Amino acid sequence: MRPLIGLFLIAVSMALAGSVPIKTLVFSTATSTSYVEMIPQRPMNLTAFTLCMRVATELSGQREIILFAYRTGSYDELNVWRELDGRLSFYMAGDPVLFKVPELAALQTHLCVTWDSTSGLAALFLDGKRSLSKIYRKGHTVRAGGRVILGQDPDSFLGSFDEQQSFVGEICDVNMWDVVLADSVIQGMFAGKREPRGNVFDWESTELRINGDVEVAIREL
Amino acid sequence: MRPLIGLFLIAVSMALAGSVPIKTLVFSTATSTSYVEMIPQRPMNLTAFTLCMRVATELSGQREIILFAYRTGSYDELNVWRELDGRLSFYMAGDPVLFKVPELAALQTHLCVTWDSTSGLAALFLDGKRSLSKIYRKGHTVRAGGRVILGQDPDSFLGSFDEQQSFVGEICDVNMWDVVLADSVIQGMFAGKREPRGNVFDWESTELRINGDVEVAIREL
Amino acid sequence: MRPLIGLFLIAVSMALAGSVPIKTLVFSTATSTSYVEMIPQRPMNLTAFTLCMRVATELSGQREIILFAYRTGSYDELNVWRELDGRLSFYMAGDPVLFKVPELAALQTHLCVTWDSTSGLAALFLDGKRSLSKIYRKGHTVRAGGRVILGQDPDSFLGSFDEQQSFVGEICDVNMWDVVLADSVIQGMFAGKREPRGNVFDWESTELRINGDVEVAIREL
Repeated sequence: MRPLIGLFLIAVSMALAGSVPIKTLVFSTATSTSYVEMIPQRPMNLTAFTLCMRVATELSGQREIILFAYRTGSYDELNVWRELDGRLSFYMAGDPVLFKVPELAALQTHLCVTWDSTSGLAALFLDGKRSLSKIYRKGHTVRAGGRVILGQDPDSFLGSFDEQQSFVGEICDVNMWDVVLADSVIQGMFAGKREPRGNVFDWESTELRINGDVEVAIREL
Repeated sequence: MRPLIGLFLIAVSMALAGSVPIKTLVFSTATSTSYVEMIPQRPMNLTAFTLCMRVATELSGQREIILFAYRTGSYDELNVWRELDGRLSFYMAGDPVLFKVPELAALQTHLCVTWDSTSGLAALFLDGKRSLSKIYRKGHTVRAGGRVILGQDPDSFLGSFDEQQSFVGEICDVNMWDVVLADSVIQGMFAGKREPRGNVFDWESTELRINGDVEVAIREL
Repeated sequence: MRPLIGLFLIAVSMALAGSVPIKTLVFSTATSTSYVEMIPQRPMNLTAFTLCMRVATELSGQREIILFAYRTGSYDELNVWRELDGRLSFYMAGDPVLFKVPELAALQTHLCVTWDSTSGLAALFLDGKRSLSKIYRKGHTVRAGGRVILGQDPDSFLGSFDEQQSFVGEICDVNMWDVVLADSVIQGMFAGKREPRGNVFDWESTELRINGDVEVAIREL
């Protein structure tokens, strides 16, 4: 049981590290014009990734909600959705992989999506709790050269937005890695750890370009 | 207090576990042909056991799901089920013992089953939380000489599978001991501790024989 | 981040507790005959108390369930109930105080009841989480000279049992103090701490007198 003392000290230092101020995005109403572009830190040709965010919405019922969109000229390279029926999904240039999980709601959810090309393993994490794995797009590569936006689903290159698919609510702490992080690492970030920092997107340093009616505020994690 | 326990266990796992690579089994569709045989490390004549696994499934509604099957020539020596009505159960050569507990779903559950012949005490643990105890098969002994499979329910020796009872989803970290582990030990393993290793099945070393369409992948706990 | 410190203190106390063998009582069926008498360590004239237990039951729907009964010749001195509508309550010689809390179920609940005569403050703790306080029987004293039983509600002195109010399920670790323990002490015991030991009932040493069909087994906390 000795190691637990060490764990305790780690935990206390973590807790004492205190509150971290971060930007947060509030989309107050459904629009076909408001969105935030995120500028990646490296080209987005990816054979694996972990994408995390903190998200809350009061939208419910029969409504699609776009959570993350990465589009090149002709393809939805990586789009994350809440589907009409409440399922969560992501699409990489074609049919989606879908997960029947508890619904996003007004209390914030820490959501992560992981995928690896070699095995095809795809999984979600809601508040640190892992979903079943599914096999999806084994051998596929996400292409570089597109644009990433929050708030709208582009049906053409950064355009053709549909208000009925827009995001309404709050979204923040969007981070992305070009590897699949271990379950325990994702659980740690849910619990407040700020390491490792994302190498595709690091919310604390990524450039955000605001368009339309999006409130950018600071809160303390 | 549920969320508190969750946080605490996550925190402990974070600190204790580090990341551990393990094999995981994905059964993508219902079949009457896909299964995985597990080769035990010792003869399975048992007067007590703890059997644990991590399991997730999107199957719901009126559907039986086999979770673990150990069969000798004529007997279901130890079969673990999700029943038609969502209850969890296990059968040792006859009528089952049933538990009315929260349903298995797409977010992974750490499930353990314990039984001891002397007292007849049978109990489940879901994510470290213990069920009520029931008295079941006092004085009974599980017989050696059978075969253990995941994914199908053998109604004869390794045959007569029924697609409508097959497992669909993900299952991994199946470990078994020939004793009843303490509640606190099971809670520790839910939280990510990798000790004590199973002496009947140790997922990190047990030989797996794959049959049919079962994806074997590696993930990091 | 403050709550994390509390979490880790709980974690450490739990981990340091190690595994503790305790007696547990399994009431397999509804009867009007099975019960367990507990012999107190001191006279039960009480102007304050904390009463804790670990309890699990699959009974649900419209059914009263007796959880603890202390009766003198003519009075229910201290009876703890799950009411018809799922609320938890306790009665001291008259009308009850009722609490609308999550229902007892098949996964074990750590339940404590506290009351103090001077302030009249009454509260419950479920898995370490405190209910609202209510004011109840200010100035009252529980009388000595009665008998304490688990499993049945005596409508006369140790008799007149009603099968429809009997306890079915598992109950153990019933401890009682003649003071109101601090919230943090109760949370510690939920998390596995074994101190302070009860001075009215200490489950590890209290004499139990078994009547009828009650299984007494040992399990490891």
